[in-house]
Amino acid sequence: MKIGIIGLGLIGGSLGFDLKALNEHRIIGVSRRGSTCERAIQRGAVDEAYTDLGAIASADLIFICTPIGSIIPTLQQLTPQLPPTTIVTDVGSVKASIVYAAEQLWPNFVGGHPMAGTAENGIEAALKDLFVDRAYVITPTQATPPESVSILATIARSLKSNVHICSPENHDRAVAWISHLPVMVSASLISACLTESSENALTLAQTLASSGFRDTSRVGGGNPELGVMMARYNRDEVVRSLKTYQAELNTLTQLIEAENWPELEKRLQQTQQARPHFLQ
Amino acid sequence: MKIGIIGLGLIGGSLGFDLKALNEHRIIGVSRRGSTCERAIQRGAVDEAYTDLGAIASADLIFICTPIGSIIPTLQQLTPQLPPTTIVTDVGSVKASIVYAAEQLWPNFVGGHPMAGTAENGIEAALKDLFVDRAYVITPTQATPPESVSILATIARSLKSNVHICSPENHDRAVAWISHLPVMVSASLISACLTESSENALTLAQTLASSGFRDTSRVGGGNPELGVMMARYNRDEVVRSLKTYQAELNTLTQLIEAENWPELEKRLQQTQQARPHFLQ
Repeated sequence: MKIGIIGLGLIGGSLGFDLKALNEHRIIGVSRRGSTCERAIQRGAVDEAYTDLGAIASADLIFICTPIGSIIPTLQQLTPQLPPTTIVTDVGSVKASIVYAAEQLWPNFVGGHPMAGTAENGIEAALKDLFVDRAYVITPTQATPPESVSILATIARSLKSNVHICSPENHDRAVAWISHLPVMVSASLISACLTESSENALTLAQTLASSGFRDTSRVGGGNPELGVMMARYNRDEVVRSLKTYQAELNTLTQLIEAENWPELEKRLQQTQQARPHFLQ
Repeated sequence: MKIGIIGLGLIGGSLGFDLKALNEHRIIGVSRRGSTCERAIQRGAVDEAYTDLGAIASADLIFICTPIGSIIPTLQQLTPQLPPTTIVTDVGSVKASIVYAAEQLWPNFVGGHPMAGTAENGIEAALKDLFVDRAYVITPTQATPPESVSILATIARSLKSNVHICSPENHDRAVAWISHLPVMVSASLISACLTESSENALTLAQTLASSGFRDTSRVGGGNPELGVMMARYNRDEVVRSLKTYQAELNTLTQLIEAENWPELEKRLQQTQQARPHFLQ
């Protein structure tokens, strides 16, 4: 199969590595920057690379691996050059807002979200085997051609990913809970600490912070642009999860204020018991 | 020095290991259960161990390593048997509520909090070198004898701990921020997810949960009794931190609702920049 990859960063570059390693496909990369194209070829992430979208007009399957905000503009530029048989997919971490816009532009569009990554960016950050044992969510709508879903699923399985097929809405709700809400919860922990007006207490807190704080604050100290993208493109689900979260936190605060220790313990037992179901 | 340790669990047993290893002290343990005493001797955590508090009446320094709720009752039983020169300390993770009650019962009391531990409990969980490079907070009041503070600090440094001396109030405020608040924040994340009424979305969330959710939910899935103890014995500071946290989360939610992306990005940049100061 002839496979095009637009955007040769962490995800695009890593997809290139693993698809090329299968020795079944010809991988053609596109990047806005010539230096990235050269480096992607040097590193062995692609067979060829160009700065012009026209270079992948003859691909059977095209991955758009740009930042979320560029997926639709890229598709708009791309589609006039494609025959209708070309399957186009993306790797964005939110789906409904992208997929419904994309399928208006290109009926043979299949939304996808390979759930892998590192804190790094760019072609230098691309890794072999990044998708092995990781979830690859594919989000068809009523309008998505089933045979295109099937082809993308086969490709994802060839990367040794675990394929999950669901609606864009279910994807966005699930990732709001387990990925986007945690960022907001975690960021607010850091910003709450920073409000401490006693300099002694703040300095002591900074000095004593250990693994509990490190873990709970990790995603809140991550890439700000990515946090904004999550909130922006999955706004309704993120706000919904935040409101629910606030209600839960209120209940817990009220239990502590009322010194209702048996009920607090019951709730903490429930969360202790529930957590392993999220980490199977 | 003759050192008594009451409570031969993770902390008491681990203290015993390292104090004994210095070959400068005689370590006498006390546990309510005879089987724990035997096991502590077998494992080499103490030189002798008894089920009777009277056995440590001649110690120079006594560590109370019971659960927080038993510290004051233990001290009440202990003090009638002690000469006034005996220094008594504790290892509780909250300080003001313990220290001010304890110094009424025993003027030669010095509050302490070695900030080390694992998820395990009991003498079998005790480890060598548990306190190396970890914070050991000592919390004297106006009434605490300075020479007793100095002796405890020397002992803590001999365990290769980093000694921090501060007021009980500053300790409690700092640990509310970096230890107790994270537990409540993290537990509420889990309980919020559990409210999801769409079974498909909940199952998908559980399936897709990965490192971000794992880290942010870790301390919220911990020991419920410990969580209750934090809230109970550090209630005012925990409630204060929770109210501040809620205000921060509200601001963030409002920014997302108002689609104020530049301001959201600014806040996430601040948390990204601030986090390393907590993890030096």
